[in-house]
Amino acid sequence: VRAVILAAGAGSRIRPHFKEPKPLIKLLGLSLLERSILTLRECGISDFVIITGCAEKEIMASLGDGGKYKVDITYLHNPEWEKGNGVSAAAFKKISRPQEKFILTMADHVYSLETVKAFVQAAAGIGHEEILLAADKRLDRVWDLPEATKIQSEGQRALRLGKALSEYDAVDCGLFIGTEALLQALSEAVNRQRYNLTDAVNLLASQGRVKLFPVEADWVDADDLASLRQAEKILLKAALPDKDGLISRTINRKFSLPATKVLSKTAITPNQVTFISFLAALAAAACFILQQPLPGGLLAQLASIIDGIDGEIARLKFLKSSYGSLFDSILDRYADFLIVTGMAWSWFAKIESPAVLLISAAALAGLPMSMLLKEKYHTLTGKVYLPGQDDGFLELLPANRDGRLFIIMLGGVLNWIPAALVVLAAITHLQAVGRLIRLRKLL
Amino acid sequence: VRAVILAAGAGSRIRPHFKEPKPLIKLLGLSLLERSILTLRECGISDFVIITGCAEKEIMASLGDGGKYKVDITYLHNPEWEKGNGVSAAAFKKISRPQEKFILTMADHVYSLETVKAFVQAAAGIGHEEILLAADKRLDRVWDLPEATKIQSEGQRALRLGKALSEYDAVDCGLFIGTEALLQALSEAVNRQRYNLTDAVNLLASQGRVKLFPVEADWVDADDLASLRQAEKILLKAALPDKDGLISRTINRKFSLPATKVLSKTAITPNQVTFISFLAALAAAACFILQQPLPGGLLAQLASIIDGIDGEIARLKFLKSSYGSLFDSILDRYADFLIVTGMAWSWFAKIESPAVLLISAAALAGLPMSMLLKEKYHTLTGKVYLPGQDDGFLELLPANRDGRLFIIMLGGVLNWIPAALVVLAAITHLQAVGRLIRLRKLL
Repeated sequence: VRAVILAAGAGSRIRPHFKEPKPLIKLLGLSLLERSILTLRECGISDFVIITGCAEKEIMASLGDGGKYKVDITYLHNPEWEKGNGVSAAAFKKISRPQEKFILTMADHVYSLETVKAFVQAAAGIGHEEILLAADKRLDRVWDLPEATKIQSEGQRALRLGKALSEYDAVDCGLFIGTEALLQALSEAVNRQRYNLTDAVNLLASQGRVKLFPVEADWVDADDLASLRQAEKILLKAALPDKDGLISRTINRKFSLPATKVLSKTAITPNQVTFISFLAALAAAACFILQQPLPGGLLAQLASIIDGIDGEIARLKFLKSSYGSLFDSILDRYADFLIVTGMAWSWFAKIESPAVLLISAAALAGLPMSMLLKEKYHTLTGKVYLPGQDDGFLELLPANRDGRLFIIMLGGVLNWIPAALVVLAAITHLQAVGRLIRLRKLL
Repeated sequence: VRAVILAAGAGSRIRPHFKEPKPLIKLLGLSLLERSILTLRECGISDFVIITGCAEKEIMASLGDGGKYKVDITYLHNPEWEKGNGVSAAAFKKISRPQEKFILTMADHVYSLETVKAFVQAAAGIGHEEILLAADKRLDRVWDLPEATKIQSEGQRALRLGKALSEYDAVDCGLFIGTEALLQALSEAVNRQRYNLTDAVNLLASQGRVKLFPVEADWVDADDLASLRQAEKILLKAALPDKDGLISRTINRKFSLPATKVLSKTAITPNQVTFISFLAALAAAACFILQQPLPGGLLAQLASIIDGIDGEIARLKFLKSSYGSLFDSILDRYADFLIVTGMAWSWFAKIESPAVLLISAAALAGLPMSMLLKEKYHTLTGKVYLPGQDDGFLELLPANRDGRLFIIMLGGVLNWIPAALVVLAAITHLQAVGRLIRLRKLL
């Protein structure tokens, strides 16, 4: 399936605020057009057609042939772009193939990856005589409703579309599965001197040929400064992983997301952030060894917060990699070991007792258990272990990494290192034994 | 696909030595017939037809309806079993379905699981007018060649079969994909008063309709005491895993296989063996704490050997389970932690130095690294990490579990505990860093 991206318009409402044309405005480190391409690439699309208009040269200079994104980009120029986006969409007819289904989207619309993934998968169910249109029925959630193209629908079909409809129950999200039917409707509309995409879609809607796809997550048509800010918010929220622990959700993400917002605009890579998190842990360990538990504890919490940023940037900028995930997991284990060894050392410096050795060994042994059980579960079942779902009441134990580092932070800040080590040992082994018992039923 | 197992014969050559009929003779804890069924079950077969003859009642009493093996068993009695196994095979015609392909095998033939898996997969390529016959062309490897049914072949087809062929290049392994063609040939042969399966197969061979499947692993037709012993050898060898370390291969398996040979005949479960291995490790840790390094080291090596037996029994008796694998992995980690903590304690009792704490912490931290990297690799790629293949020159580090416990054994026996802890710390972290570097290219 090819994707056709309309990037021909002038973006007049936003133009005065930026030096670059609208499709090239950067949002969290990626231009709007780059983000469209990379989002679709994650959904398995590798062939792109970009319809250019007023900023042909700048766009071609910025994206090239797509090689740097590992996709193919073909450019089509629409000299009549000022007439309307229907003329731009119609330009695709020149190179379309018989019975081709294609994804049609706007360079300035921002969606979460999940929305686009689900939409692309729905393409298979669409016939050549109809089209699929992403529509948001959650009217109270639509950004800038007055500016949106409204839809009056019946069941899964659109009846009519328009900005000024008085009765409507959904909003056009600007994402289509196009077919020959759409290209014919576009020609017909242009012949009647109706130059907007909505005119062609209205033609099809009147014949009951516009199927609607319900959008369930936030999206935005980014055509002014406020909507760009809203797009940033939506993207940052979508960069959170599914399986956060309690401390991550309630504390760490409050700090990591604003940091990600800033760092995503720089060239820093997720693996570099992983390494910085490791350095923070190393500094925490050093503080404990130097009998400075307060900064030690705070640095451990900082390492925990930074540990969230690498993944956020990776998801936000499409930089996820297997090696990054491995590197992060292993460095996290080393960070944990170093911090706990530092705490053990600081305790041992005060009391040279075998009890210190035993409790420290128990805490060290507990650290990798959560990951070991989760990874083994994954290799045995092919499914990701989700603590929120698979742990049951064990989820209350703060024995995942966010919880463990929080206990270390408390131990440092309150200068209760022995207590922190005892608690660490207790909760990690309790979790391991609890999971072994629970999995006996689940496996 | 249904499997038809011929279990009608009297087994006259073996009968005097056993009280049970031949198909019910136990080999490493499972009767020959049970092993046939469970081997085929592992290949995805769940529907069985057993043709009985002289020992109908005993066989039905032993296997029941198959529920205890989670399969369905239908029994067909052949009152004329004494005439020959062709009559028994022909009995299946009564309940065969139009155009049915079925697996036909003998209750007294023993194959490795891999052979049967590959054979069952080849069934898809067989037409309804032909049959597939497993044939061993490695004549120097065939057990009891004089007793075997020989095959003269041309390319992938059999020309003729017989015990007394003067020219032959393969041996009939007694494993078939049967079709309507085989059932017709059996009727034809019986009508001509030719009562052996080989007679029917010969009919088809003369028409070029017997395709041969090359068997690459050892198998045996177990019809006397010597061949039963040979079958045990073949099965024990097939129970070894693919991914053994050097110490496992050269030392541990020399002890674990004989133990498995004995234990498989008892009711002990793999999980019980896992727990006994854990108890041996616990005893090793206790010895180190009690300043008894010699028994401590020997018990650690014993734990390592027993750690191989659970998997051997599980593979041999078709008792592999996801939970067993998880339980084994996690208990092994705890065993390792306890032994190393015991060693640290014994050293600490002599020298109360922070160096003891640091080196012990480094050794403890290194213990889970091998598993963490392997499991993470598996979840990221979907492929099992094979040290022999993926570790490259890192394989020389004895940092997998067999190597680590061997070092602990040496440390105990030679009373060099500090050195053993230093070596453990060094090799485990070297392996972890080495794998991180290597996987940067592989992932």
